[in-house]
Amino acid sequence: MKNFAGTPGTVTGLFLRLFQCLFAAGSIASMATTKSFFNFTAFSYLIASMGLQVIWSFGLAFLDACALAKKKVIHNPVLVSLFVVGDWVTATLSLAAASSSAGITVLYFNDLGGCSVSIGEECQKYQLAVALAFMSWITIGISSLIMFWTLAAD
Amino acid sequence: MKNFAGTPGTVTGLFLRLFQCLFAAGSIASMATTKSFFNFTAFSYLIASMGLQVIWSFGLAFLDACALAKKKVIHNPVLVSLFVVGDWVTATLSLAAASSSAGITVLYFNDLGGCSVSIGEECQKYQLAVALAFMSWITIGISSLIMFWTLAAD
Repeated sequence: MKNFAGTPGTVTGLFLRLFQCLFAAGSIASMATTKSFFNFTAFSYLIASMGLQVIWSFGLAFLDACALAKKKVIHNPVLVSLFVVGDWVTATLSLAAASSSAGITVLYFNDLGGCSVSIGEECQKYQLAVALAFMSWITIGISSLIMFWTLAAD
Repeated sequence: MKNFAGTPGTVTGLFLRLFQCLFAAGSIASMATTKSFFNFTAFSYLIASMGLQVIWSFGLAFLDACALAKKKVIHNPVLVSLFVVGDWVTATLSLAAASSSAGITVLYFNDLGGCSVSIGEECQKYQLAVALAFMSWITIGISSLIMFWTLAAD
């Protein structure tokens, strides 16, 4: 199994995981502090999906940190297969959540003539949450591709 | 390069491409016959993304059919890399388009108290378009995974 930047147990991999955590946590914080997110199914789904993302990425970041501390490379094929499946599932859920929230944000912000009409000043929080969710998706996407490549090139 | 069901130039691959085309074309047809899709950015984006999907899948279906007719296997690594990138790009765009449209459809159908309030009987067409877009995404997702695996296992 090849060993390159971003595979489990490397510093790049650890940083990717930490960024996923940070972006997802920021997205939850921004969305959960609005007053009316629970009126929108898509926004509630965004929080659920980003919550899953935080748990998953934090768990893998912890594993990476352990592997780095013990200077041991985690390249067990069974474990990597598990990581690949989990990564792909969370990446797909994150993209779907970010897109559906973005659809609604664009609907209110552009299509229905500006933000102040219906949900007021909370718009910027929604937009920030969507932007952070997309950034979280980009980092988990990079991780997923690297993991899949590691598994397939085995 | 391994040769298994779904790789370019096989009957399974051809059928996957044809289903992608059919689902995407059905989604466009269902969405474009509604009266007010152009008021929603996400619905217009769905049509654009499904249009790209139809062109891409039809092109690859044509290539597969040619390869089948000439009994020649297309396993040029450069060509397969190109297919992989194109597949991943269209799959991501399709998922994003389907999710953002689904977000808006759910908003109108559930969150704002039923469909008849704002966009009336056209709701079923929107829902059909979203469902077909998701089915198109599932088939292109299968194709993408197979293609990526083919390339990585080279």
